[in-house]
Amino acid sequence: MAGSLLIRNVRPYGIVCATAATDILVQEGRIAALGSALAADGVPVFDGAGRLALAGLVEAHTHLDKSLLGMPWYRNEVGPRLIDKIENERAARKALPIDPGRQSRRHAMLAVSHGSTVIRSHVDVDTECGVSGIEGVMATRDALADRVTIDLVAFPQSGLLVRPGTLQLMEQALRLGAGTVGGLDPCAVDRDPKGHLDAVFGLADRFSCGIDIHLHEPGEMGMFSMELIIERTCAVGMAGRVMVSHASCLGMPDPSLIDPLVAAIADAGIAIMTTAPAARPAPPVKRLIQAGVVVCAGSDGIRDTWGPYGNADMLERAMFIGLRNNLRRDDELEIALDIVTTQGAKALGLQAYGLTPGCDGDIVLVDAETVAEAVAQHPGMRTVIKRGCVVAQDGQVLNGQVLRIAD
Amino acid sequence: MAGSLLIRNVRPYGIVCATAATDILVQEGRIAALGSALAADGVPVFDGAGRLALAGLVEAHTHLDKSLLGMPWYRNEVGPRLIDKIENERAARKALPIDPGRQSRRHAMLAVSHGSTVIRSHVDVDTECGVSGIEGVMATRDALADRVTIDLVAFPQSGLLVRPGTLQLMEQALRLGAGTVGGLDPCAVDRDPKGHLDAVFGLADRFSCGIDIHLHEPGEMGMFSMELIIERTCAVGMAGRVMVSHASCLGMPDPSLIDPLVAAIADAGIAIMTTAPAARPAPPVKRLIQAGVVVCAGSDGIRDTWGPYGNADMLERAMFIGLRNNLRRDDELEIALDIVTTQGAKALGLQAYGLTPGCDGDIVLVDAETVAEAVAQHPGMRTVIKRGCVVAQDGQVLNGQVLRIAD
Repeated sequence: MAGSLLIRNVRPYGIVCATAATDILVQEGRIAALGSALAADGVPVFDGAGRLALAGLVEAHTHLDKSLLGMPWYRNEVGPRLIDKIENERAARKALPIDPGRQSRRHAMLAVSHGSTVIRSHVDVDTECGVSGIEGVMATRDALADRVTIDLVAFPQSGLLVRPGTLQLMEQALRLGAGTVGGLDPCAVDRDPKGHLDAVFGLADRFSCGIDIHLHEPGEMGMFSMELIIERTCAVGMAGRVMVSHASCLGMPDPSLIDPLVAAIADAGIAIMTTAPAARPAPPVKRLIQAGVVVCAGSDGIRDTWGPYGNADMLERAMFIGLRNNLRRDDELEIALDIVTTQGAKALGLQAYGLTPGCDGDIVLVDAETVAEAVAQHPGMRTVIKRGCVVAQDGQVLNGQVLRIAD
Repeated sequence: MAGSLLIRNVRPYGIVCATAATDILVQEGRIAALGSALAADGVPVFDGAGRLALAGLVEAHTHLDKSLLGMPWYRNEVGPRLIDKIENERAARKALPIDPGRQSRRHAMLAVSHGSTVIRSHVDVDTECGVSGIEGVMATRDALADRVTIDLVAFPQSGLLVRPGTLQLMEQALRLGAGTVGGLDPCAVDRDPKGHLDAVFGLADRFSCGIDIHLHEPGEMGMFSMELIIERTCAVGMAGRVMVSHASCLGMPDPSLIDPLVAAIADAGIAIMTTAPAARPAPPVKRLIQAGVVVCAGSDGIRDTWGPYGNADMLERAMFIGLRNNLRRDDELEIALDIVTTQGAKALGLQAYGLTPGCDGDIVLVDAETVAEAVAQHPGMRTVIKRGCVVAQDGQVLNGQVLRIAD
């Protein structure tokens, strides 16, 4: 659904000469004009009340299929290793049970309420659940298409080569409609970095799609896997279509190790996704962006069997980025916002993203005096506009096709 | 003001056999009984609606005198060094100006709205502002005494010995009514660790009060200062009356360095305060508590010239503790809650803290199924009860002496 809307009295971020309030006209889903004397007969009018207008927030990494939102509290007694969490989750998926369709819908609605207009979701594909997760999240993608754009990554959470049959299921997921090939810790989980990455890049070639690899591997092991990813990305000309998520190895403190790797990532056109984890080495976002690397962010799983945290709010995530990277100055907090907006859009290859004429009418209104306040305090009660339609108001997703307009 | 209140239908955390809902009777400010058939003629009744009941949250380290809450957005363009922030703040205090009385009142009210019933505030004492900060926060302490208990630390933010005259002002602050002697980075700021600590312990001896030292110093320098603090604490028998705030040096990764230091801190009876900073080495809270160290937490400055973050919510701070220390299991999140409740109370030497009969009637009601949910999701809209009086409802501090009771 593409709507038309005249949004009066907002302060669009990043628009020259628009720190003062102005109006934004969206016509048939796209931004048509900005200015203070726009006329648009028959177009509904929405009063922005002087709020800050940001382009829709970009949730670049989450797991819509596995949140426990709306279910009874899950008492977490899981062991400390990565494999403990992976195995516990496979068991819980059956035992609870976790329905990917229902849970992805709940999770996506929460994300929309906070202002995400685009979501990339990794979705588990394995020999126990098959492609049922993919089918469930695709149903949510279609049901919520008017409210949010959802991009699915076929994700071999339990390993690709170590669990025979998974590769065939990945192919099935990509045929069904997942748009991106996922991968996971080529050394630490799949125990065969060459085999894992050749399989992932092979799928991407056959299905003409991008790649997004979870790389939790720390230190030199992670650097090694990153080098293998860089080599393949350059060899097959996939600049701009490969993302490495988490990239814990970039949190190593030694610049003599990290600086050349960062330069190679920039040259290869690989995007980096961070959750800004407080307890783990994390990519230094300011240094990466200064080196020309596209950096985006995600919530990762929220309130699932891995952990109880998260609320799908990408402005709160921007705060986490700020806290993790010790960003304190206003110009630094603008970098944190860029990561959850324009940088995220670049990472996901969005073609018409922004607040200038011609861009998609995906806008979130935030009651903040400045961008730094929007990040540091991430005020709630937002208004969210998708392709010119108000889809959430006062922090609540609106129901029904006819959206309430205050004019 | 001490009130009486029958709080019906709540689930008190930590009370054996009370995971089911029960009632709490507060009489004349103290918890009189828990049970399901309490009779109390003439006592107002409050329906807790099945919420989780926690003992009042303990904000063990903040700076009430310097928040910019309610003032126009402050554009932060401050340099990267600690001294840049200290000097910038002294200039901003005059230029903006920052009124410690007004700002501490705003800040404390926000803290109360989130459920803090006890606050320890460091208050700057220096040769430019003198004791005006102390006077302003004392006015707030007295004005809000019915709502929150405020404990003042006389804090030489700009250095104690490096700025002659500060020691005399510290004495004046302690005579006025500050209850604790503060200190700051004996090596890094005051450049004379022996002189600084002898002065701090000397003041504590003369005024018969406790000590709370900001120790940002990292690595071996911080370990050295910590050793000097331990030596003095043991020598003068101040176990239980000395706190080291931040204690960044405890975030060093080498257990062969840290373990003996942690054991010495436990033996000396020194409490450790953490903000759980994401970008800095931080005390490992679980290891400290297992070693017998009392660990509490604080917001530090909120929304001030040092940085734009913070909202004075100690349940959100418990979440930061969980994220920083990679606490994921429910039993681990209970440790995070303990830090902002019972551990905080121990650290501040509160005598009648808890949810058992005889304790102060300081209670916060949270709409969470479990303690882990209260920490990870830190739901808003809390009810806050101070000495048996409802002081905040739906996340808003109530005004006036007659508090609204829904019965």
